[in-house]
Parts: sequence; C-alpha cells; structure tokens
Amino acid sequence: MNTIKAVVFDLYGTLYDVHSVRTLCERLYPARGDAISRMWRQKQLEYTWMRCLMGQYKDFESATVEALRHTCGSLGLALSPAGEASLCNEYLRLAPFADVPQALQRLRAAGLKTAILSNGSRHSIRQVVENSGLTSSFDHLISVDEVRQFKPHPEVYQLALDTLNLDKADILFVSCNSWDATGAKYFGYPVCWINRSGGVFDELGVSPDLVRRDVGDLAARFPVAGALENVS
Amino acid sequence: MNTIKAVVFDLYGTLYDVHSVRTLCERLYPARGDAISRMWRQKQLEYTWMRCLMGQYKDFESATVEALRHTCGSLGLALSPAGEASLCNEYLRLAPFADVPQALQRLRAAGLKTAILSNGSRHSIRQVVENSGLTSSFDHLISVDEVRQFKPHPEVYQLALDTLNLDKADILFVSCNSWDATGAKYFGYPVCWINRSGGVFDELGVSPDLVRRDVGDLAARFPVAGALENVS
Repeated sequence: MNTIKAVVFDLYGTLYDVHSVRTLCERLYPARGDAISRMWRQKQLEYTWMRCLMGQYKDFESATVEALRHTCGSLGLALSPAGEASLCNEYLRLAPFADVPQALQRLRAAGLKTAILSNGSRHSIRQVVENSGLTSSFDHLISVDEVRQFKPHPEVYQLALDTLNLDKADILFVSCNSWDATGAKYFGYPVCWINRSGGVFDELGVSPDLVRRDVGDLAARFPVAGALENVS
Repeated sequence: MNTIKAVVFDLYGTLYDVHSVRTLCERLYPARGDAISRMWRQKQLEYTWMRCLMGQYKDFESATVEALRHTCGSLGLALSPAGEASLCNEYLRLAPFADVPQALQRLRAAGLKTAILSNGSRHSIRQVVENSGLTSSFDHLISVDEVRQFKPHPEVYQLALDTLNLDKADILFVSCNSWDATGAKYFGYPVCWINRSGGVFDELGVSPDLVRRDVGDLAARFPVAGALENVS
C-alpha cells in the first residue's frame, strides 16, 4: 500500500498558464498574439530538448529568448531589444490557473508536502511564484539548473527525490505535459496527468496513474491511502 | 584548408519527401491528409527526442507507428490495423525529391563519397533507398540503431566518422532539418543546410557553413578546395 506524502508539480502549463503571455504579444503584434504565443512555447520546449540531447545546456531563460527570436523571424516580425526584454519578462509574471491557489491550500491542509520541479532556473521559478503571491504554498522550489539537463532527462526527476528525502512511491508527480508525465512515470513516480484541454495522452509506452481535469479536481478527489496501491 | 572528401546526408526530409505519405493519408481520410501528415511527422520527431532523452530507445518504426496512433487519436480519427500497416508502410516507399538522383550522380562523379546517416533503422533505410532505385548512389547507409540514440545526440554523428574513417573536416553533413544541422555542427562537421521551404535557421548558437536551396543546388555549386577554409 502506498501513502502519498508529497506532491511535486510541473510549473509551466500545469500551475501557471504559459499562454498568459498572449496578451502582451497581442498588444505588440495585433492579431498575431495567439500565433506567436503558440510557436514561441513549442520552440522553447524544442530548444530545451535539443540542448539537452546535444549536451549543450544553457538555462531556460536562454531557450525562452532564443525561441522568441526564432518565432519572430519565422513569422516575419521585427523584434526590438525593448520588445524582446518585455516579452521575456512576461514569463516571470505568468498567471496561475484559477483553481491552483485553493488546491494547494487544500493539499497542504491534508498534511502533504508540496514542491515545484521545473525547467526554469531558480531565479525564474522564485520570481513566478513570488509575483503570484504563492511563496508560502510550497515547501521546495526545484530547478533543473542544478543538474544542467532538461525534462524528461531522468537526472531531473531524481532531483525531487534527493530534495524531499522520500521514496519514489511516496511522491505524486503532477504535470499537464503528457511527455513530462511520461518521463516521471518511466523514472518511477506515481503520476497524475492534468488534462485541462481534453487532449490525448502520448503513445510512449506508459499511462498515468491518475487523470484529473485540473489541480482543483486533483485536490478535491485526492487519492486516499491504498488508491494507488497497484503503483510499484 | 579543407577539402571535402565525403558528403553525409540526412534521409527524411532532405533526400526523401516525408510528406509523400500525404496522398495515402488523404485517400484514407479525405480532406485530412495534410493535417495528419504534418502532425504525424512532428510527433514522430518528438517521440524520437523523448525516447532518447528518457533513455527509453525503441527504433524509428516504433516512433512512426506510435506517432500515427497519437495523431489519429488527437484528431478523433479511427485507425484500423490494416490502415495503420498501410500508412506505416508508406514510410518505406517515400519519394526522393526530384533534384536528388542527378545531384548524387554529380557529386559521385566529382570523386566524393556519399552516405546516409538517418534516424531510420537499417531495414528502413535500405528499403527506402532500394524502392527508389538509388542503391548504387551511396557508399554507406548508416543507422542510429547501432548506438540506440536519436539525432541530435552526439553519438549519432560519431557513427559517420567511424564508418568513413575520415577527419571531421573532410565530411560535409547535409540536412534540411535545422536542428539536425545544428547537432552536426556542434559535433564538429562542416554543415550545409538545405532550405527548401525558405525557412529561418534555428537560434541554437551556431550557423551552417553553407545554405543551399536543394541538393541539386548543392551539387551544382559544390565548394571547391578552400571554400570552407574557415571551418575548424
């Protein structure tokens, strides 16, 4: 029987809405905000994967700015130094999803430890959490920067284990990114996939232990002891 | 001064058109062929990156079929076992781009060795090349399967070096995939980016040594000795 003692969250897209940058994109590039925001996010992820695969790590902020430059170049949009700075700064002021603050309180009130394990640098994670007033909602903020790899590299998932000093089976890993949930599952954590958009889980050989609509839904129906007992 | 002695090509998208599967996609799913072909290719690449990052290698054929299943699931399209088999079989019968056969002849007539270095399995590469009648146009067909990693992992690029028994500076690596050209450049090859679609090169910290419109253009204007002399 497993009893979950800690919940470790992905940040970008799971607790915080990466597409909240769309508003400033739209203001700077009218009618193109959505296209920019989507391509920027896709390239940002690809650049983290590429750099990790090539053994050419640079931190997440670098991926963010390089992906923005490529996006604007691909879409034929001029990007001024001031525009670049203000757009990248938006990634430090992402909005949490509406269900998140109360859900975190509820989990903590139930005696669970809470943490973030993110591709972001320590500085970025701290800024995002501070700017949204949620600093007191987490026991640990963990950055991939400590191992200079990006998700879904196994060394990243190991970081949460080392920080929390628990067994894998004690930790529920929560992500809206199907590939991130897959990486955590292969590493050995029980996994909850947050499926906000009604998507289809990736076909990479494993399935999530739980699927929840959002983090509020996870907190409201948190598995009691034994509910994950078929998880190794 | 460098004198290029061998040209090593990426297969999918560089010599062969991955979107030649669009025709069968369209026949099986009228009006959806283009959407399927694009999402399938994107997911196929992502699945190779994910499996390499997670240390969960399965061969390229597995990525192809898993990506197809995810694509059909995401688009709400039923996929029968027969449909799946016939669609995946199309990846063994890709059409070479029109400029490719003559360009290969021209390079070989100039005394250059030619090879393919591909994510595909040995079986896939051989089948694609045989089915297009180009077997005699290559000295070597090299598969990532030998190292059980995918591009852009450095071990993959090392394979061409080991096979050709040349120095890095003797080998021109050619890819239409910007991220693949980037990986080869970081590894240390002189690199030619084939930019068939008028795209923008990725912002990952390096630039290609040559940019050509297609492989025919590369062969017609092949750099003479010294033309790449600023390449380390």
